[in-house]
Amino acid sequence: MIKSIKKLQQKKYRKEYQQFFVEGVKGVTDLLNSSYEAAAVCIESGREKDEDIIAIIDIAKEKKVPVQVLPEKDIKQIKSTDTFPGVMGIANMKEKQGLGEGHVICLDGVMDPGNLGTIIRTADWFGITNIVLSENCVDPYNPKVVRSTMGSLFHVQLIRDDLETRIGELKEKGYKTIGLTLDGESLDKLPEGLLCLVLGSESHGVSKEVKPLLDASYTIPGKGEAESLNVAVAGGIVMSKL
Amino acid sequence: MIKSIKKLQQKKYRKEYQQFFVEGVKGVTDLLNSSYEAAAVCIESGREKDEDIIAIIDIAKEKKVPVQVLPEKDIKQIKSTDTFPGVMGIANMKEKQGLGEGHVICLDGVMDPGNLGTIIRTADWFGITNIVLSENCVDPYNPKVVRSTMGSLFHVQLIRDDLETRIGELKEKGYKTIGLTLDGESLDKLPEGLLCLVLGSESHGVSKEVKPLLDASYTIPGKGEAESLNVAVAGGIVMSKL
Repeated sequence: MIKSIKKLQQKKYRKEYQQFFVEGVKGVTDLLNSSYEAAAVCIESGREKDEDIIAIIDIAKEKKVPVQVLPEKDIKQIKSTDTFPGVMGIANMKEKQGLGEGHVICLDGVMDPGNLGTIIRTADWFGITNIVLSENCVDPYNPKVVRSTMGSLFHVQLIRDDLETRIGELKEKGYKTIGLTLDGESLDKLPEGLLCLVLGSESHGVSKEVKPLLDASYTIPGKGEAESLNVAVAGGIVMSKL
Repeated sequence: MIKSIKKLQQKKYRKEYQQFFVEGVKGVTDLLNSSYEAAAVCIESGREKDEDIIAIIDIAKEKKVPVQVLPEKDIKQIKSTDTFPGVMGIANMKEKQGLGEGHVICLDGVMDPGNLGTIIRTADWFGITNIVLSENCVDPYNPKVVRSTMGSLFHVQLIRDDLETRIGELKEKGYKTIGLTLDGESLDKLPEGLLCLVLGSESHGVSKEVKPLLDASYTIPGKGEAESLNVAVAGGIVMSKL
C-alpha cells in the first residue's frame, strides 16, 4: 500500500490509478464530507489520540472508509512536505461530469500549482463552482495544488476540456465570455448575466486561440510600475465583482 | 566570488553581507534601473549574445557595474531554481529609510515567500510603495520572494519594524488603520483618507497585539464553502479599492 500511495506523487500513476491524496485535517475532513469517494485515511502513529484526528476517524468509520495507522518510517515515504500534518486521505477521482449552474471560470494554461490551487480556493470563497481547465494546465491533483486549495478542491466541479469547444458551447447557452488581458478596457463594471471568465497563463496570458472568442477583455487599472498582476490575484479581483 | 554568492541563498549571510541576488532578465533590469546599488551582474556563458542580455550588459556598463561571464558549472552552484534564466544580479541592501507619501501596507507575520512576493508585486501594480514587515515575516530578500515580486521589489519601500510602534506613529500622522479579518464588517467601501492596511499571517490572521490598534476590520463577502481567502488574493482585492 505504501508503494502505491508514494506513486500518487507522480501524475502518470494518479492517472493510472485514478486516485490522488490530500494531507492535513482540513483537507481530509473536506474530502470525507464531499461527493468524492475516499479510498483510505492514513494516520501517523502517535497522532491517533489528537482531538481533530479522532473526529476524522469518527467520520471515516461512519462512511465505512478504511483507516490505517502508519509508523513514521512509512509516513516518510508517502508525505509530500517536510512536516507531515498527521493525516492523509486517498481520494478516488470522479467520473467526468457536466458543469452546474452559474458562472464558469476557464483557465487557459495556468501552470503554477500554487496559482491553480489559490484560484480554486478563491472561486469556492465566492461561490463559483464551475472550473474548466485547458489541457495544458497543471494537473489539479498534484499534491501542491491540492494543498493550496485548502480543501476547496472538494467543493468545486473541475473539468479538463478543450477550451475552444467548451467556450463555444457556453456561448450557445447565452454565457458572455470575458478575459483578463493587459490591453483590455479598464475593469470597472462587469456585464450582466452569466459569465465565463477566462484567466490566461502566467507567461503568455490568454492564448491566441481563445482570444478571438472573448466578448470583452478587461485590464485591472493600476498606476504603479509592475508589468502585470499575478493571475490568482487578478482572478480574485474579478471574482469579487461577479 | 562563487562561494559568497552561493551563501546569499541563506538568510544569515544575506544579513552579514547586506546583499541579496535576483535572477532573470526582468529582475536584473529592474535592479539596474532602481535606487538599489548593484554589486555585480553574472551571466551564464553562452548567453552573452542574447538580445535581452546584451541590453543588460549595456546598462551595467553605463552604471559601472562589473559584469562576469560564468561557466555552467559555476552557475549550478549559485542558481536558486532548476532552470537558470541566464542572468543574475547581486544587489546591496539599502540603509533603513523612512516611508514615503501615500497608503501603507503592514504585513503582520506573512510567512510564505510566494505570498510576500505576490503582495509586493500587487502593491506596486496599484502604486502603493510603502510596505512595513513585522519582525516575524519571511525575509523579503529570500530568493523565492525576490522571484515572486517580478521586479517589483525594486519599486517599493520595504521596512522591517515593530508593527505596534509603527502603526502608533502612523495613527498620530492621521492614518486610519484597517485590517482584514474573518469577523469584520462586510467590505463594501473603504474609509476616506490615508490608510494603513494590515494583512495578517496565513495561519493566524492579524495578531492579538495588532488587533486592538485597528480602527476598522473588514471581511471580504463570500458565499461559498471556503474557510478563508489566500492573504495575497484578499490583499489584492482590498488594494484594488484603495
